[in-house]
Amino acid sequence: MSKVVTMGEILLRLSTKDYRKFIQADEYEACFGGSEANVAVSLAMLGMESVYVTKVPDNPIGRCAISFLKKLNVDTSNVSYGGNRLGIYYMEKGSAVRPSNVVYDRAGSSISTAQPADFDFDRIFEGADWFHFSGITPALSEQAGDVTLEAVKAAKRNGLTVSCDLNYRNKLWTANEARQVMPQYMEYVDVLMGGREDARKMLGFTLSKENEDDTPNLEAYEKMFQEMVEQYHFKYVISSLRQSHTSSYHDFSGCIYDGKNFYAAKKYEISPMVDRVGGGDAFAAGIIFAILSGKETKDVIEFSVAASALKHTIPGDANLSTVEEIEHLMKGNGMGRVQR
Amino acid sequence: MSKVVTMGEILLRLSTKDYRKFIQADEYEACFGGSEANVAVSLAMLGMESVYVTKVPDNPIGRCAISFLKKLNVDTSNVSYGGNRLGIYYMEKGSAVRPSNVVYDRAGSSISTAQPADFDFDRIFEGADWFHFSGITPALSEQAGDVTLEAVKAAKRNGLTVSCDLNYRNKLWTANEARQVMPQYMEYVDVLMGGREDARKMLGFTLSKENEDDTPNLEAYEKMFQEMVEQYHFKYVISSLRQSHTSSYHDFSGCIYDGKNFYAAKKYEISPMVDRVGGGDAFAAGIIFAILSGKETKDVIEFSVAASALKHTIPGDANLSTVEEIEHLMKGNGMGRVQR
Amino acid sequence: MSKVVTMGEILLRLSTKDYRKFIQADEYEACFGGSEANVAVSLAMLGMESVYVTKVPDNPIGRCAISFLKKLNVDTSNVSYGGNRLGIYYMEKGSAVRPSNVVYDRAGSSISTAQPADFDFDRIFEGADWFHFSGITPALSEQAGDVTLEAVKAAKRNGLTVSCDLNYRNKLWTANEARQVMPQYMEYVDVLMGGREDARKMLGFTLSKENEDDTPNLEAYEKMFQEMVEQYHFKYVISSLRQSHTSSYHDFSGCIYDGKNFYAAKKYEISPMVDRVGGGDAFAAGIIFAILSGKETKDVIEFSVAASALKHTIPGDANLSTVEEIEHLMKGNGMGRVQR
Amino acid sequence: MSKVVTMGEILLRLSTKDYRKFIQADEYEACFGGSEANVAVSLAMLGMESVYVTKVPDNPIGRCAISFLKKLNVDTSNVSYGGNRLGIYYMEKGSAVRPSNVVYDRAGSSISTAQPADFDFDRIFEGADWFHFSGITPALSEQAGDVTLEAVKAAKRNGLTVSCDLNYRNKLWTANEARQVMPQYMEYVDVLMGGREDARKMLGFTLSKENEDDTPNLEAYEKMFQEMVEQYHFKYVISSLRQSHTSSYHDFSGCIYDGKNFYAAKKYEISPMVDRVGGGDAFAAGIIFAILSGKETKDVIEFSVAASALKHTIPGDANLSTVEEIEHLMKGNGMGRVQR
Amino acid sequence: MSKVVTMGEILLRLSTKDYRKFIQADEYEACFGGSEANVAVSLAMLGMESVYVTKVPDNPIGRCAISFLKKLNVDTSNVSYGGNRLGIYYMEKGSAVRPSNVVYDRAGSSISTAQPADFDFDRIFEGADWFHFSGITPALSEQAGDVTLEAVKAAKRNGLTVSCDLNYRNKLWTANEARQVMPQYMEYVDVLMGGREDARKMLGFTLSKENEDDTPNLEAYEKMFQEMVEQYHFKYVISSLRQSHTSSYHDFSGCIYDGKNFYAAKKYEISPMVDRVGGGDAFAAGIIFAILSGKETKDVIEFSVAASALKHTIPGDANLSTVEEIEHLMKGNGMGRVQR
Amino acid sequence: MSKVVTMGEILLRLSTKDYRKFIQADEYEACFGGSEANVAVSLAMLGMESVYVTKVPDNPIGRCAISFLKKLNVDTSNVSYGGNRLGIYYMEKGSAVRPSNVVYDRAGSSISTAQPADFDFDRIFEGADWFHFSGITPALSEQAGDVTLEAVKAAKRNGLTVSCDLNYRNKLWTANEARQVMPQYMEYVDVLMGGREDARKMLGFTLSKENEDDTPNLEAYEKMFQEMVEQYHFKYVISSLRQSHTSSYHDFSGCIYDGKNFYAAKKYEISPMVDRVGGGDAFAAGIIFAILSGKETKDVIEFSVAASALKHTIPGDANLSTVEEIEHLMKGNGMGRVQR
Repeated sequence: MSKVVTMGEILLRLSTKDYRKFIQADEYEACFGGSEANVAVSLAMLGMESVYVTKVPDNPIGRCAISFLKKLNVDTSNVSYGGNRLGIYYMEKGSAVRPSNVVYDRAGSSISTAQPADFDFDRIFEGADWFHFSGITPALSEQAGDVTLEAVKAAKRNGLTVSCDLNYRNKLWTANEARQVMPQYMEYVDVLMGGREDARKMLGFTLSKENEDDTPNLEAYEKMFQEMVEQYHFKYVISSLRQSHTSSYHDFSGCIYDGKNFYAAKKYEISPMVDRVGGGDAFAAGIIFAILSGKETKDVIEFSVAASALKHTIPGDANLSTVEEIEHLMKGNGMGRVQR
Repeated sequence: MSKVVTMGEILLRLSTKDYRKFIQADEYEACFGGSEANVAVSLAMLGMESVYVTKVPDNPIGRCAISFLKKLNVDTSNVSYGGNRLGIYYMEKGSAVRPSNVVYDRAGSSISTAQPADFDFDRIFEGADWFHFSGITPALSEQAGDVTLEAVKAAKRNGLTVSCDLNYRNKLWTANEARQVMPQYMEYVDVLMGGREDARKMLGFTLSKENEDDTPNLEAYEKMFQEMVEQYHFKYVISSLRQSHTSSYHDFSGCIYDGKNFYAAKKYEISPMVDRVGGGDAFAAGIIFAILSGKETKDVIEFSVAASALKHTIPGDANLSTVEEIEHLMKGNGMGRVQR
Repeated sequence: MSKVVTMGEILLRLSTKDYRKFIQADEYEACFGGSEANVAVSLAMLGMESVYVTKVPDNPIGRCAISFLKKLNVDTSNVSYGGNRLGIYYMEKGSAVRPSNVVYDRAGSSISTAQPADFDFDRIFEGADWFHFSGITPALSEQAGDVTLEAVKAAKRNGLTVSCDLNYRNKLWTANEARQVMPQYMEYVDVLMGGREDARKMLGFTLSKENEDDTPNLEAYEKMFQEMVEQYHFKYVISSLRQSHTSSYHDFSGCIYDGKNFYAAKKYEISPMVDRVGGGDAFAAGIIFAILSGKETKDVIEFSVAASALKHTIPGDANLSTVEEIEHLMKGNGMGRVQR
Repeated sequence: MSKVVTMGEILLRLSTKDYRKFIQADEYEACFGGSEANVAVSLAMLGMESVYVTKVPDNPIGRCAISFLKKLNVDTSNVSYGGNRLGIYYMEKGSAVRPSNVVYDRAGSSISTAQPADFDFDRIFEGADWFHFSGITPALSEQAGDVTLEAVKAAKRNGLTVSCDLNYRNKLWTANEARQVMPQYMEYVDVLMGGREDARKMLGFTLSKENEDDTPNLEAYEKMFQEMVEQYHFKYVISSLRQSHTSSYHDFSGCIYDGKNFYAAKKYEISPMVDRVGGGDAFAAGIIFAILSGKETKDVIEFSVAASALKHTIPGDANLSTVEEIEHLMKGNGMGRVQR
Repeated sequence: MSKVVTMGEILLRLSTKDYRKFIQADEYEACFGGSEANVAVSLAMLGMESVYVTKVPDNPIGRCAISFLKKLNVDTSNVSYGGNRLGIYYMEKGSAVRPSNVVYDRAGSSISTAQPADFDFDRIFEGADWFHFSGITPALSEQAGDVTLEAVKAAKRNGLTVSCDLNYRNKLWTANEARQVMPQYMEYVDVLMGGREDARKMLGFTLSKENEDDTPNLEAYEKMFQEMVEQYHFKYVISSLRQSHTSSYHDFSGCIYDGKNFYAAKKYEISPMVDRVGGGDAFAAGIIFAILSGKETKDVIEFSVAASALKHTIPGDANLSTVEEIEHLMKGNGMGRVQR
Repeated sequence: MSKVVTMGEILLRLSTKDYRKFIQADEYEACFGGSEANVAVSLAMLGMESVYVTKVPDNPIGRCAISFLKKLNVDTSNVSYGGNRLGIYYMEKGSAVRPSNVVYDRAGSSISTAQPADFDFDRIFEGADWFHFSGITPALSEQAGDVTLEAVKAAKRNGLTVSCDLNYRNKLWTANEARQVMPQYMEYVDVLMGGREDARKMLGFTLSKENEDDTPNLEAYEKMFQEMVEQYHFKYVISSLRQSHTSSYHDFSGCIYDGKNFYAAKKYEISPMVDRVGGGDAFAAGIIFAILSGKETKDVIEFSVAASALKHTIPGDANLSTVEEIEHLMKGNGMGRVQR
């Protein structure tokens, strides 16, 4: 069993029920999420030894976040306690022609005010195989960016594979700001994940051509991936390929380049969308799992796309699917039939 | 900021949850609605000064209805208190091949027993720009029809633009009854809204031709609108164009005639339907807002169709969308993407 | 009014809410279901005199199941009380690419340990016209199979029409086991219902040809039905025809053979699926009702397919649709429109 | 098994949740109640053959009320269908120093507009032992009073015991109005139930003396009961004895006079109050059951007081307690212990 | 109708349901509260013209808080929009021997970063009679303290009566910090409210003697109030008198000194406690209303104690009781009886 | 940090909401409980290393039970997976004069069919300090009794302290059956817990005298404890002392004898009762924690009584209180005050 370490911010998510707008809410569904925490949960569900590193306030709300992770088998023994608050995001789920809406209230969170001294990375990475982070953490604060850099360096020093999901968030920083920060991490990254927007805004790569019908131009993706590998020596570059027809109906797929070969996966139609948040994190976890399991490049992308497709049918941030369920979907067996 | 006055019946809506049939319900979701109240809320959400006139019982249930309107910024200072009860409608939301079902329990409501003396229309219309009513109020009772006539006359006397949404309700009266009552209001109406069924049953206008595939025959609409303008000198005639494929999937658009030009708007696919009730009222509010904002005829219909499309994704009777959200949809930006 | 007797197991169904996976549930929606109980409820909703025979524990949970049936007008005066427990099934409803998942906990239930002496079938069948059972009961236990055989024999002895819905359940027994048990009942059966899988696994009949696009090959169905009638002298053989595109989107139809003519009904698109469980039972009840009402063969299948289509839009196991609602759908009137 | 007929109005009760005031409610718990319906349910729970007579609208809401009764084993085969609406009452449950608040919306209900011709009382009373009505029905409308008189006369004509629960409702009529109507029924009544307020306002009897500490003056009760028997020849006069310390804490007992002996029962402390509504109806049902079961006068009052005490712990209008549960309480066994 | 201005922080309150501890919560009830906002709502419910001044973020969560106030008739036209976030408090309601627990997450809220320039106090106070603030606002931040000082000065300048509720919060500041800040406001205060703890920690006054049994020593209160009046020339000094036997059972009363006379009010037993938060704010609102209504000193304290007692029975922060309900309680009428 | 091992059955608890009777339930709150699992959770909350041993089915329901324990920090690495089902208990919570009612459906559960070979006790007990079991496990089945005996022997062999909570359950076995099984375990037990009923029914010890007012006769307890120590050489004998005034109001205390001294603890009044189930398990966990923490005998009983008192205020089976919260209660600080 491989051991994967992820690090980032875990937030309390407060969602209105039944497609209510915020102004209609007098209760909120509460769960916990955050890009890297979602990856950690996914990996634990897939049977990996999954270690999540973060900092949460030493109060009941912070401890609830950790209990959530424990329930789902994530190793939280390296979590740092302190700081002032757990970040929040409010969510109003869209439907049909109405987009989902997210209100962040994460400024001043414990992880955004964390410092390198809060974590002993060499100890954390003992016996670990992989370290995963995302571009959200450096966007939180300069300090959080420093912690990330320490982590990445320690991961390489300890011989781990390092993956990064770019995850551009325009409510946290501008493309300009992101482009001044993100490239410094790239020399340590082995596996890069991110959509075309992320690649353009955060690293300055662009697709040479786009299809008019909103379908992905795979040749352009392959070309861009080659440029990215050339510049940063990534072992894998991977992008999800999502077409958002409406809030309730997406097509989801992905493509991968391993330095030699480029593959695009089968496309899944997601309709209706149960919960779109965390689709990318389920995808990232699928990639990490598949590579660590020794799958071939083509199978890596097929597995991770199927994993992400399933996530879109599960409420909450995290993919709770098992390897068996993902492989069941990949085989196309019994689609839509009750298992009884 | 323009000031719009609407008048009509506000009801307590009791809906079963989760597509339950009535016989499965042991709780009801409660909200307030009614065609003109929905228009009033929509207009307030769009930033207009929105005044709603009605009569409710002076008991906690009546006062709750008014508090609902206040919360959403509707001016309720001209509401009359008295009478015996607030009308109710029970609702069982349909899905796929099952239609929604509504049970009215509105007989004897305070507004249906109101009298002209309950309202001082000249004072109410001071400083107002527009008066909107619907064909539902005259259907409630003869008295309510008298109040409506008083209101319409006072509105014209005070120089307001008058709009009417025909809104035929076959559980309230027959086409025959409607046709004996509604024409008398038409001479006061500047902006007429209503579907082909309404026009036929309440005013006796018919489409000269219908398409076999249930799509609207726009030429026939234009012709019918011309006839209507000829007879009643409306400034605008407007109809929504709805194709109900199933309870969960509608196409929605609309068309408009301003005495010179006829336009049909972009069509939106609504799937899944979150709440179909109030779609026409959101449309009416969009029209009023757009005309008062000085938009060109084509933009009037595009705006109001987009406004109504959004309503179908929001639970409850009323459209809670803002101008910004409607324009976002009209631009086709970010359809289906989380705003984060 | 005809009188129909059904017999089988009624279970407590515990479903997670809002598409939650089991691990996310801290409450369950509770209702009661079971193939034959669902048929009994459907028949009562259709206005038949519906008698349901089962055995439940003499405890509050068992009595709740019976109260549920009484509420819906099912005659429960022949229910036997005793044994240890009411069977349970846990349900996690799927969506889009995720299948529904059912966990059975029905071993040791009162009905599975019932004995022929628990029921006085000759008295039960007095004045009755029809007896319906399914292949689930013999799958529960040998004893339950014995009770079923007693019932079937008594039904024939008393001149009732006997129908059987094959209903293969692979979590209860293997095809091999089923094939050793089910044929013995066939000599008593007048009306046989079952899909192609059921026919193959339980009776050994196979379609001679299948279409590649997952649509039903109607000629092959007709041929198989002819073979079945030849061997067992059924008066009717009927199969539903379901294409499960995703968990949320099915096509549903059915076909029938009456010894002379073969008909396939209109196909309904079910999207979104509200609750797939019990669709077959609604279909069976439709057949029984339609035959007992003296409908022609073609109308039998049209009615029962429409009945089942409606069931898929209703939460819970049972079809709560009335004859009026089913006929409304068959006429294609007002699809998707609010009834107001 | 004795057969008891009750007649009256069944209403939809809409209650706010969790002690919310009406203005805080966006959902309502829905159940059905009404004094005589509650008695009918109680009697069915106690194992009697319980027949309930009313008139409800022939719409889904009316039919839901009847399904509720069927579920609980009440014979509804004599219900009349028609009229316009089912009455409603809204309820806001009090706590501690805050009283519960009820808003009636029952004007124009089907039963209040019923006529004697809606019911064939001689057929209804065939084989019946007892008829129970309350003073609420005559308060609804003159017509409802006429129906009541017809019923009472037919009951006597058919040899039934007749009981009346006075049940004064000051939101329905004044004491003056009540006193002009109620005495006419008294000559037919064998068993009279009612509190001191009811006796005073509806029949003009008063307690000669009241204790200062709000405890009942039993001597005065006995004296008043003697006067009542003298005037109207009742076989039993019974009153509950309730001290409402707060909304959450009542003492409950009762007293009875059988023409010879007067008894007061054990007093139960009810704290906390789960649901106060229907306490008197549970008491009435207990009396009817106990007398029909041949209990001695002292046991009649002890049984009915215990029955009512239990009702106060059960949400909804109706007492769902069994004879076994009531007798368990009377014996004082295991009070407050989990039964496991 | 008098006009009262209040100013302070409004927070989103997130409460667990059904006495769950935080770790058991997967949903939160959401309402809005905050000491001065609660006073503002109470006053509006009592029929006063109630103006609330605060600063909230210009996002959906901030706007929801304002909608909540509008619904309850509070004038929010002077609210300032801006800053980063709406403060939150998480609440876990206690029961019996378990205390309630509150987790604040209010650092960095819009109001705590507000500046005097955000408000034009002279305009705000035009036509107003009274200004009320609490010791919570200065505890939020130095800036908030400055805004408060500006407000208080402007209020005096404009001839308003000024009241202050001391409201010591030990999670916001220490007694030492409070004592350096609060006295500066006292010269502007006419009506001072606060418990003995508040008086000691924030102003340095102490009771000369305390009863051993936790009942209040009224003589000591009178003496302390005299000292307070002597030093600060308050017109009224008022304290609530609360004995917290358990989380579910409090005794509540209050006492007042008007420079001449000292009165203690009737004591109410609150059991069970529905919601303890906001009890003090209901009390404060009662005082303001009663003084503005010209009540005599004794009646001021009786009214405000009854108002507060009722608040404890209502979920949420705010007292939703009307004058009629409060006076009903004061008269001791119908305590615990259903109003029907 | 000490390490404690507990072993027993964990069940799914399905509770009706809001004091509903079973017949009123259409949803159930789901949590997990069972005497020893509750002890395990309590100990983990108190900061102990808590290991729970059981057998659950290898299906989603079984895995949910384990996730619940993981969330609360219980070490589940020694759980055995297999068997057929997870036991269930249905619960209807009582109030005031109505007792709670439990329906067990636990026959055939995985743990009741477990065998000694399912567990490697010598490995399980490595490094452990304490083993706790209850009299429920031997009551489940003979096999479960055998497993228990193996466990107890292994525990002694490995030098652990062994505690037993007698926990007589009359729905599982008779006193006669219990008395033939339980004594064999006693020679291995160091710490015995159990009420007077348990001692009498399972071991044959009786109190020599009982007080008439239902208060405990402490002298009789001391005497009985001395006899028990004499016979079985227990190091501690402990009993809770509970007076159940009503379902909603209990007095709770306890007493202890350590071979030399006898102490009775402070008594807590529990009103209202939030959840009575698990009170004894919280008490047991308190004892184990306190002894392992080296507390003196008097402090052991004070701590464990306070722990149990808090449990009664928390919904669900398990005590979620921390050491800090328990000590806060013991000190009598701030009883009933909001912590803010």
